[in-house]
Amino acid sequence: MKQEWKGTPMRKFAKILSGASALAVIVPSMALAQDAPTLESLAANDAFVFNTLLFLIGGFLVMWMAAGFAMLEAGFVRTKNVSMQCLKNISLYSVAGLMFWIVGYNLMYGGTPNFFGAWDFTGYEFAAEDVDTGYASYSDWFFQMVFCATTASIVSGTVAERIKFWPFIIFVVFLTGIIYPIVGSWEWGGGFLNSEGFANTFGAEFSDFAGSTLVHSTGGWAALIGALVLGARKGKYVDGKVHPIPGSNMPLATLGVFILWLGWFGFNGASQLAMGTIADADSIAKIFVNTNMAAVAGVIVAVVYTQLRYGKIDLTMALNGALAGLVAITAEPLTPSVPFALMIGGIGSLLACLTVPLLDKFKIDDVVGAIPVHLVAGIFGTLIVPLTNGDASFMAQLMGVLATAVFVSVVSGIIWFALKMTIGLRVSEEDEYVGLDQAEIGVPSYPEFVNS
Amino acid sequence: MKQEWKGTPMRKFAKILSGASALAVIVPSMALAQDAPTLESLAANDAFVFNTLLFLIGGFLVMWMAAGFAMLEAGFVRTKNVSMQCLKNISLYSVAGLMFWIVGYNLMYGGTPNFFGAWDFTGYEFAAEDVDTGYASYSDWFFQMVFCATTASIVSGTVAERIKFWPFIIFVVFLTGIIYPIVGSWEWGGGFLNSEGFANTFGAEFSDFAGSTLVHSTGGWAALIGALVLGARKGKYVDGKVHPIPGSNMPLATLGVFILWLGWFGFNGASQLAMGTIADADSIAKIFVNTNMAAVAGVIVAVVYTQLRYGKIDLTMALNGALAGLVAITAEPLTPSVPFALMIGGIGSLLACLTVPLLDKFKIDDVVGAIPVHLVAGIFGTLIVPLTNGDASFMAQLMGVLATAVFVSVVSGIIWFALKMTIGLRVSEEDEYVGLDQAEIGVPSYPEFVNS
Amino acid sequence: MKQEWKGTPMRKFAKILSGASALAVIVPSMALAQDAPTLESLAANDAFVFNTLLFLIGGFLVMWMAAGFAMLEAGFVRTKNVSMQCLKNISLYSVAGLMFWIVGYNLMYGGTPNFFGAWDFTGYEFAAEDVDTGYASYSDWFFQMVFCATTASIVSGTVAERIKFWPFIIFVVFLTGIIYPIVGSWEWGGGFLNSEGFANTFGAEFSDFAGSTLVHSTGGWAALIGALVLGARKGKYVDGKVHPIPGSNMPLATLGVFILWLGWFGFNGASQLAMGTIADADSIAKIFVNTNMAAVAGVIVAVVYTQLRYGKIDLTMALNGALAGLVAITAEPLTPSVPFALMIGGIGSLLACLTVPLLDKFKIDDVVGAIPVHLVAGIFGTLIVPLTNGDASFMAQLMGVLATAVFVSVVSGIIWFALKMTIGLRVSEEDEYVGLDQAEIGVPSYPEFVNS
Repeated sequence: MKQEWKGTPMRKFAKILSGASALAVIVPSMALAQDAPTLESLAANDAFVFNTLLFLIGGFLVMWMAAGFAMLEAGFVRTKNVSMQCLKNISLYSVAGLMFWIVGYNLMYGGTPNFFGAWDFTGYEFAAEDVDTGYASYSDWFFQMVFCATTASIVSGTVAERIKFWPFIIFVVFLTGIIYPIVGSWEWGGGFLNSEGFANTFGAEFSDFAGSTLVHSTGGWAALIGALVLGARKGKYVDGKVHPIPGSNMPLATLGVFILWLGWFGFNGASQLAMGTIADADSIAKIFVNTNMAAVAGVIVAVVYTQLRYGKIDLTMALNGALAGLVAITAEPLTPSVPFALMIGGIGSLLACLTVPLLDKFKIDDVVGAIPVHLVAGIFGTLIVPLTNGDASFMAQLMGVLATAVFVSVVSGIIWFALKMTIGLRVSEEDEYVGLDQAEIGVPSYPEFVNS
Repeated sequence: MKQEWKGTPMRKFAKILSGASALAVIVPSMALAQDAPTLESLAANDAFVFNTLLFLIGGFLVMWMAAGFAMLEAGFVRTKNVSMQCLKNISLYSVAGLMFWIVGYNLMYGGTPNFFGAWDFTGYEFAAEDVDTGYASYSDWFFQMVFCATTASIVSGTVAERIKFWPFIIFVVFLTGIIYPIVGSWEWGGGFLNSEGFANTFGAEFSDFAGSTLVHSTGGWAALIGALVLGARKGKYVDGKVHPIPGSNMPLATLGVFILWLGWFGFNGASQLAMGTIADADSIAKIFVNTNMAAVAGVIVAVVYTQLRYGKIDLTMALNGALAGLVAITAEPLTPSVPFALMIGGIGSLLACLTVPLLDKFKIDDVVGAIPVHLVAGIFGTLIVPLTNGDASFMAQLMGVLATAVFVSVVSGIIWFALKMTIGLRVSEEDEYVGLDQAEIGVPSYPEFVNS
Repeated sequence: MKQEWKGTPMRKFAKILSGASALAVIVPSMALAQDAPTLESLAANDAFVFNTLLFLIGGFLVMWMAAGFAMLEAGFVRTKNVSMQCLKNISLYSVAGLMFWIVGYNLMYGGTPNFFGAWDFTGYEFAAEDVDTGYASYSDWFFQMVFCATTASIVSGTVAERIKFWPFIIFVVFLTGIIYPIVGSWEWGGGFLNSEGFANTFGAEFSDFAGSTLVHSTGGWAALIGALVLGARKGKYVDGKVHPIPGSNMPLATLGVFILWLGWFGFNGASQLAMGTIADADSIAKIFVNTNMAAVAGVIVAVVYTQLRYGKIDLTMALNGALAGLVAITAEPLTPSVPFALMIGGIGSLLACLTVPLLDKFKIDDVVGAIPVHLVAGIFGTLIVPLTNGDASFMAQLMGVLATAVFVSVVSGIIWFALKMTIGLRVSEEDEYVGLDQAEIGVPSYPEFVNS
C-alpha cells in the first residue's frame, strides 16, 4: 500500500471509498481537485493553526523530556537517593514554569524586564495581537517554558546525591528566572549576539538553532560550577583513586534516554518555529532525520569506543553517547546533510567519552555525566555550525560560547557560593551516608528491595 | 533564530532556502503571499482535518494516561501485588473500550440507548454524515472512550491490594458501560444538567469543561464507596493507630505522574473539541498553559506544605499534588488567567494534602490517594468555576456535584454490595498476606529482588 | 461542553470570545464563514503539510516503540541480562537507522540499489521534487526507517540471554540493511507481490496495510531461525521438562506493552500515508479505533483463556495478548468494522496463547514470546484480510506469507549459521551463568537489589 500512493493515488481513493458506494461517482472529481503543491504560503489562518500546533506538539514532547531526565537520574543514583532525585526533578520543572512565568519570559523576550506583566488577573485576552504574530501567544510561551525547564534538569543530575533540597531549589529559581532568560535574550531575544554590531565584528550573528549553547551549555556551566563548589561524593575519590559508584537501575536510565531522544524531535523540530509553508514542513522533516541520525552515531561511537578502549561496552556511555549526539546537533539540525549529522553526533559522543575520565582526573564528580554530554558536546556542536551553515562564522560561534561560559560561570558561581556560605549546600556526612531519601524526604525509593 | 521569525520572516526563508539556489528567485513572492491572519474560519475541509487530528492526538495522549495510572499504582503498592496492579490496569482499559463500544457511547450521546447499534458488521461506512459534523466520527469515539477508561483507572488504585480480580472487572463493566455514560449524558450528552430548565432554576447550565466532576469525581465516588465496602488492608489500622504501608517503587510512581501530566494536555486541550479556527487554536494553547500551571502549583504547594507540616517533604504528596492540581483545573482550564490557574491548582493540592489524614481518621484505606486527588480536588475544581467563568453559577455547579455524588454513590454502592454478597469482593486473609500476585496470577513482579 | 459543539457551534464561539469584547461584533460573520465540508481535496499546500505532519507524528510514535520493546524485554529477562538487553535495544535502533540510510531505503524503494545515493554531502536540497510527491521526502524516510527498526526489535527479545552482542549486531546489520528492505520492496516498493502478473495469477495483489507480514513476520521468522540455531537457554529444558524462567520486572514489561500500544497508533494510523483529504482523516480515525479494539480483544481473550486453562491469569500472556491483537490487525486496520477488529485481535491473541506451549514442546526458547506474537499473529492477520477487504485474495495473501517465510528463513538462516561458524553466536556456558551484563558489559542492571 505504501508504494501505491506515490504512483497511483486513484487506487488509494478507490480503496478507501470502496464501502461507500453512494460516493463512488465523485471519486474522479476528487482526484482532479488535487492540484500540485506550490511554494506559495498557506492561507494565513491555516498557517496560524499549523504554527500553533507545532508549538504545542513540540512543547509536550519537550515537557516529556523532564520525565526523561527524572528517569535517567533516578537510574544513575544509588537507591538511597532515588526518591530525592524524583522529587528534585518534578520540583525543578514546576519551579521553572513558575519562574519563567513570573519573570523569565519577559526578561528573555520583553526588551525591558516586565515583572508579572505579561499575564494579569483579568482573564482571557485572545485578541488581535495574537493574529498578527501568526501563532497563539500561549503556545509560544509553553514551548519556550519547557526549554527553560530543560536547563534546570541538566543541573540536577550533576549535583545529585549530596546537595540539600532547598538550596538546590533556590538555585533553580535563579537559573530559570534570571540566568537562562538573560543568556537566551542575547540571541533569541534579539540581544547583542543577534545584533548587527556583533555580526560586523565577528563575521556573522551567533547561530544556535535550538540551544546547544543557550540551553545545554548554560545548564552545563551551572552544573560544572555547582560540582566544583559542592565537591565530590564521599568515597568517589579516595587516596588518589577513582571509585566508580554504579547507578541503581539501568533500565530506568535507558528509559530516560529513550524519552529524551523522543522529546528531542520536539526540541529541535519545533524550533523551526513555523509549519505554515511547505518549506517549513520540509525543514522540520529534515531536522527530525538529522536529530535522529546524530543520536544514532552517538550510540554507535560510544559502543565501539568503549569496546575498543575498555574491552567491554559501557552501557552508561552508550546512553550518554546518544544524548551527546543529540546535544551536538542541536545548534544546527537543519543545514547538515545526513553524513554531516552523523559526523557531528559521533564526534559529540566521542568527546563526551573522552571527557568522563578527564573529569575524574580533576575530581569533578558529575553523577550522571551531564557535563560531558551537555557542556562539552554543546560547545562542540556550537563551534561546528559554520561547517554546514554558510551564514555562520566560527569567531561568532566562539564568542557566543565564551560569553555564555563567562556569564553563567560567574553568576552561578556567585549563587552557589552565596548558598554555601548562608544556608549551606551540602548535606551532613551522616545524611550523605544514610542517603537523602531518609534524611530529607522520609520516603524510601524501594523499601522492599534493599537490605540495609 | 527564535526571535528572528517574529520580526523578520524574510531572513528565515532566505536561510532555509539558501542551499536551493534554483528556488532563490521565488523567495520574495513567497513572503508576499503570506497575508495577515484574520478571525475568519478555515475552509471547512481544512477544519475537518484539524478537528479530527485534535481528537486523535488528544486521544492517544489520554490513552497514554492508562499507562500513567498503571505505573503510579504499581509504584504505590507492595511488591507482592504489583503484577496484579499491572494486570488490572491493562484489563480495565480493555474492558472500558469494549463496554464503551457496546453500550457506553450510545448511552451517553445517543438519546435513547442503542445497544450494539453504532457500529455493525457491515464494514466501512465513511459517508456524508461524517462530513456534516466537521470531524471524523471515529476520532470522536476514540477521544470519548479514553475518558471513559480514565474513570475506571481512578478506582483501581484505591481498592488495590485486597480486591479480587474478577469482581473488580465486573465493577468496571458497570462503571464504564453504565455509570460513567449516564453521568456524562447529563451534561455532555445534552441531558438535564445541560438543559434550559436546569439553567433557569440554578442560574446557569452545569459547566465542566473536561470532567473534574463527570470523569474524576465519578471515579472518585466509585472508589470511595468501594473502599468503604471493602474495608482497609490488614495491618493498616491496628489498635487505633495508622500504620503507613510504603509503596514499593517510587521512581515508577514518579514516571506515572509525569505520564499523567503529559496526557492531561490531551485531556484538557482536546476537550476544546475543535481546532478549525484560530480562536480554537488559541484556546487550546491557553488550556495547555493553564493545565501545566495548575500542576506546577500543585507540586509546589504539596512540597511546601509537607515540609512545614511534617518537617520532611513527602514525595508521594508532591506527586499527588501535581495530580490534584490537574484535576482541579480540569473543570475550567480555559477562562482562568494564569494566576488563577495557579491558585486553583494550588488549592486543589492543599485540599488533597489535608484529606489524606482525614481518610485515615475514618479508616478509609485509599492505597494510592485517588480520593483526595480525584474526588476532593475534582469537587473543588467544579465549584470554583464561576470565579473565572462568568457564564457559570455556583448553585448549578453544586447541583451537578451533588447529582453525581448521589447517583454514583448509590449505584456503585449497590454494585459493590451485590458483588460482595454474591461472588465476594475481597481475597482471603491468607491470600492478602501472600499477595495477589501469588494468589491470583502466579507471576511474581520482581522474582529476584525480594527476600520472602 | 462536549455536546454543545455538535449542535450549537454559535454558543461555543460566544463562550470562547466572551472575554474579548472588542471582537464580539465579528462573531456572527465567523460562524457564517464556516461552510459545510465537502469531499473535495484540501488545497495542495495544506495537504502537503498535513501529509508531512502525519509522517512525523506517526514516525515519532513508532520510534517510541523502540523504547517499548526495550522495556518489555528488560522486564522479561533475568536481572543478570537486563543491562545487555537495554544495550541491544538502543544499539539495534541505531544500527537500523544507519543501515536504512546507507542502503535499506534505496533497496526498498529505489528500483536499483543506490548505495549512499539518496543523501550526499552537498547539503540541503529542498526542491521541486519534494513538492510533487505531496509530502516532505525526509518525513517519509523517517517513517519508513522506524518500521525497519521495529523488525530488528522483534528479534532481540527471542534470542536474549545467550547471544553475544557483536554477532547480534552483525545480524541486525543484514536484517535492516538487506533482508527487511528486500521483503518490503516486493510489496511497498512495487515489486512482484504488488505486480499485475501476481494479481492475475493469484486473484489480487498481496495486501498488507502496515506490515503484519512485511514487518512483524519478517522479524518473527528471523527470530525463529535464530532461536533454532542458538538453542535454548541452559536450564530451560532439562530431562524433558520445561522450567519456566520468570522475567525480572513485570511493571517494566507492562510499561513496554503500553508504549507499544501507544506507538501502534502511529504504526497503523500513519500507514494511511496521507492526511490531506477528509477521507484520509476519516480513515486514520477508523484505523485508530480498530487498532485499539484489536488490542482490547487481545487482552481480554488472553485473560479469560489463561484463567480457564491454567486456573490463574497469566500477566505475561495478557501483555502478549495485547501485542498479538495489534499484530493481527496490522495487515488490515481499515476495512474491518469494529466487531471484526475485535474478532481479529482476539483470535490473534488466542493463537499466540496456543503457540507458547507448542514452542516449548519443540524446545524453541523464545524469551519474550516474540514468535507467537509477531510471527503467528502476523501470519493470521495477513491471511484474514480477505474477510473484510474485498480487494484481497486468500491465495495472494498465502503466497505473500510463503514468499516471506522462505526468503527470510533461508537468508537469515545462512547469516545465523555463518556467524555461528565464524565468530560464534553464543556466549560461553560460564558467561551465560554469570549473565551477559557481567560478561560483556560490566555494568550491572540493579547492583543494589540482587543478592548473588
